[in-house]
Amino acid sequence: MRNLDENTITEAVLARHAQATDERLKHIVTSLVKHLHAFAREVNLTESEWEAGIRFLTEVGHITDEHRQEFILLSDTLGLSMLVTALAHRKPAGCTEATVFGPFFVDNAPPYNNGDDVANGAPGEPCFVSGAVRGPNGEAVSGARIEVWQADAKGLYDVQYNDTGTHRARGVLHSLPDGRYHFRSIVAEPYPIPHDGPVGRMLDALGRHPWRPAHLHFMITAPGYERLVTHVFREGDRYLDSDAVFGVRSSLIAQWHRHPAGTAPDGTAMATPYSTLEFDFVLNRST
Amino acid sequence: MRNLDENTITEAVLARHAQATDERLKHIVTSLVKHLHAFAREVNLTESEWEAGIRFLTEVGHITDEHRQEFILLSDTLGLSMLVTALAHRKPAGCTEATVFGPFFVDNAPPYNNGDDVANGAPGEPCFVSGAVRGPNGEAVSGARIEVWQADAKGLYDVQYNDTGTHRARGVLHSLPDGRYHFRSIVAEPYPIPHDGPVGRMLDALGRHPWRPAHLHFMITAPGYERLVTHVFREGDRYLDSDAVFGVRSSLIAQWHRHPAGTAPDGTAMATPYSTLEFDFVLNRST
Ligand SMILES: [Fe+2]
Ligand SMILES: [Fe+2]
Repeated sequence: MRNLDENTITEAVLARHAQATDERLKHIVTSLVKHLHAFAREVNLTESEWEAGIRFLTEVGHITDEHRQEFILLSDTLGLSMLVTALAHRKPAGCTEATVFGPFFVDNAPPYNNGDDVANGAPGEPCFVSGAVRGPNGEAVSGARIEVWQADAKGLYDVQYNDTGTHRARGVLHSLPDGRYHFRSIVAEPYPIPHDGPVGRMLDALGRHPWRPAHLHFMITAPGYERLVTHVFREGDRYLDSDAVFGVRSSLIAQWHRHPAGTAPDGTAMATPYSTLEFDFVLNRST
Repeated sequence: MRNLDENTITEAVLARHAQATDERLKHIVTSLVKHLHAFAREVNLTESEWEAGIRFLTEVGHITDEHRQEFILLSDTLGLSMLVTALAHRKPAGCTEATVFGPFFVDNAPPYNNGDDVANGAPGEPCFVSGAVRGPNGEAVSGARIEVWQADAKGLYDVQYNDTGTHRARGVLHSLPDGRYHFRSIVAEPYPIPHDGPVGRMLDALGRHPWRPAHLHFMITAPGYERLVTHVFREGDRYLDSDAVFGVRSSLIAQWHRHPAGTAPDGTAMATPYSTLEFDFVLNRST
């Protein structure tokens, strides 16, 4: 322990954890230390680069508060979040794929009935969303809890406005006895992830843009099935091949059809153009 | 870019950096992403473990301020700081080895003359420190700037007290024409790194103690020579083989001799016991 060099220090750190009683923690930290040290050796990390890294993490920590989670943005933009999602949800063929959770979920979204308008005043062209929730054998899943949240016409979530108590373009409803659901909302638009902080500067330095293709977030739960956290993306979006957080899956892209003024699917007389979107979810059985 | 799985996502993230113009940054981030993803795959990191990691980093960020740098503590305790030091300072045989900088350095330490007492009221048994600064061929280095800082009898640095404007047990002096230096201070004691935060909890969960063996910090600069940042450790200290930050080198351990009351090396009449420490530094030539 007294004459560690750039190679022997790694084993010395790992040996120090011999007394750890939590075997899983020990396993995780062992792997983390090995890879962290291998990284530093591989790039021959200099002292000033190390200092820049400490400063960067300090800034990420200081901009993070109850309304903004810059560490999640960092994980998202480095592809770690999507990797963890992929590791956790290796689904059988036919089940709806999972994607990243993202930082804009909030607790206590308001309840709605099928047919309600969840926009609650959020700006955007009306969009009628419908579909079904099914199990892996095609069985209807009745009473599934469907939570939806999305950005508005300005590319902003309700929580990004100053009146952070008001829920807009987010809500909870439940599938009908035949597994179907339908609600009214607005057309989601592409948006940049918050990029006025250290993660935005990192993207800039790496020649990357901060945009995400337009999407609706869904979280669906039902007894006997795995929780599904996913998005529905909009076919034709310019950012489908360069999502800043690597969340796109082909199977999650759907057509959002645009219609002239007239009678909407639910019978509402629409004086302006509107869109429709149909998407079915297939839940995996829980084990 | 649309159908990434747990293996293909890594290449997709790296491909996104094709436009980066800073080649060194691109090289570093490429290696970092590869190792970060390899770590997550190797341990099959779960979503709840990922969440725990995000919470941990958030806490590290929030406890960090101008007086406390928890990210440096994290780097130190995972051996990364010592690894970066070792990579940056591969010295020829005979030159004094470098070790970690640590979080207790402050700018604007007060100037002293040789023979002065740098303790400035810090509690501890008196210690008379002397030695020489030399070059690799044994040549005396005159006028070398020697900055010293250390913990007191309570194991605390001045900056850990509430009166943070007062410098105690730290100072700057210069070597004499024959390369020699001497000053009075106090005997350094072992101390735990700050362990009332997330890094302390991490050490605890890993079955590790937070202690560092007693040491003096030195930073020595002279024109024509590499800057030397190092410690002098105290022979016999119980923590020499388990330094919480992996900073010990055999070549940096010295005898701190204890003497009964009497006449100190500089002629001072000492009414109480005191210690002496002699240590020579050998600087590497700068390139
Ligand atoms: Fe989103
Ligand atoms: Fe120290």
